[in-house]
Amino acid sequence: MKIIIVGASGTMGKYLTSAFEKEHEIVRAASKGGDIRVDITAAESIENMYRQVGAFDSLICTAGPTYVGPWKKMTDKEFRKGIEGKLMGQINLVLIGQHYINPKGSFSLITGALSNEPQLNFANASAANGAVEAFVRAAAIELENGIRINAVSPTVIENSPHYFPFFPGDIPVTMQQLEYGFRKSIFGANTGQVIKPY
Amino acid sequence: MKIIIVGASGTMGKYLTSAFEKEHEIVRAASKGGDIRVDITAAESIENMYRQVGAFDSLICTAGPTYVGPWKKMTDKEFRKGIEGKLMGQINLVLIGQHYINPKGSFSLITGALSNEPQLNFANASAANGAVEAFVRAAAIELENGIRINAVSPTVIENSPHYFPFFPGDIPVTMQQLEYGFRKSIFGANTGQVIKPY
Repeated sequence: MKIIIVGASGTMGKYLTSAFEKEHEIVRAASKGGDIRVDITAAESIENMYRQVGAFDSLICTAGPTYVGPWKKMTDKEFRKGIEGKLMGQINLVLIGQHYINPKGSFSLITGALSNEPQLNFANASAANGAVEAFVRAAAIELENGIRINAVSPTVIENSPHYFPFFPGDIPVTMQQLEYGFRKSIFGANTGQVIKPY
Repeated sequence: MKIIIVGASGTMGKYLTSAFEKEHEIVRAASKGGDIRVDITAAESIENMYRQVGAFDSLICTAGPTYVGPWKKMTDKEFRKGIEGKLMGQINLVLIGQHYINPKGSFSLITGALSNEPQLNFANASAANGAVEAFVRAAAIELENGIRINAVSPTVIENSPHYFPFFPGDIPVTMQQLEYGFRKSIFGANTGQVIKPY
């Protein structure tokens, strides 16, 4: 299977690359490093990535920039980080990618527990997650040729301990749990689901 | 109570104005008509509205432009309608409005069943609703001075029968049910809730 991993240079992307590269052809896409450069905040950059990669079977996205910071200083400007990044970035990966993906292919996006369990300073990520999760449900009834779409929604990630203090009470998701969430999305038959790998 | 209704010239806004104006001071804000003009897709226009109105107790938003149309023609461009309209429009009403609202005031935004129950052609509205609902949960733990925030999430609206064919199986929400949803948000004590008035 030919799998594109967007965010391949990040904590999650690196782990998933090692997990899947033994059995699958992986195209590592990232804003820095990787096989192909992509800036998910620019639709042209996404189009360009797909044009270079050509037909593929599965897209994983683990890239999702958002603004983290104090609520009282949050204005339209700060909020745009998540709107252009985790939200429109991922939605454009699907809107554009549907024209390149093989029949029976799948899109696996990244959200997170913040959509239903907010934490202080993360309202921008909550909104982006909520949008992507609702989009996944809507896209699932639109995509044709057996193409599927799911979101994987972890809590804070085991390998990102610097985030632990911001997520009091969240039991970290292990890297293996995260991998299993993506396995369910990619190799399972479900669509329109928000997969919580815990 | 001084209540701003954004979208006051629309189907829902008109009904809510008549329902609440006997007992409350209503400021009707709309893109056309009303007491004050506001374009919710422009942060400066929102700021200008609040500056003119001054302190208030409650904001209702029933305005939420989104793109409705065939999935296959949906690109970044079409998707922006809901991103700038129903999504950032409503979020900016809160981010800016928090600096003008009275203690113990409330924000009541509009979403809809599409966040969890998608229909063909409405992926843009689904995403906007999902974002706003997650934002409401996040904002509820950030707002201070007893300020509350909720979303009212109807199905298709009784007084918008031209939408019925696009919502097969949805039992329309009556105007009175919609009013009661907003009553719960404004005059109740709950916050961070998605109120389904059916």
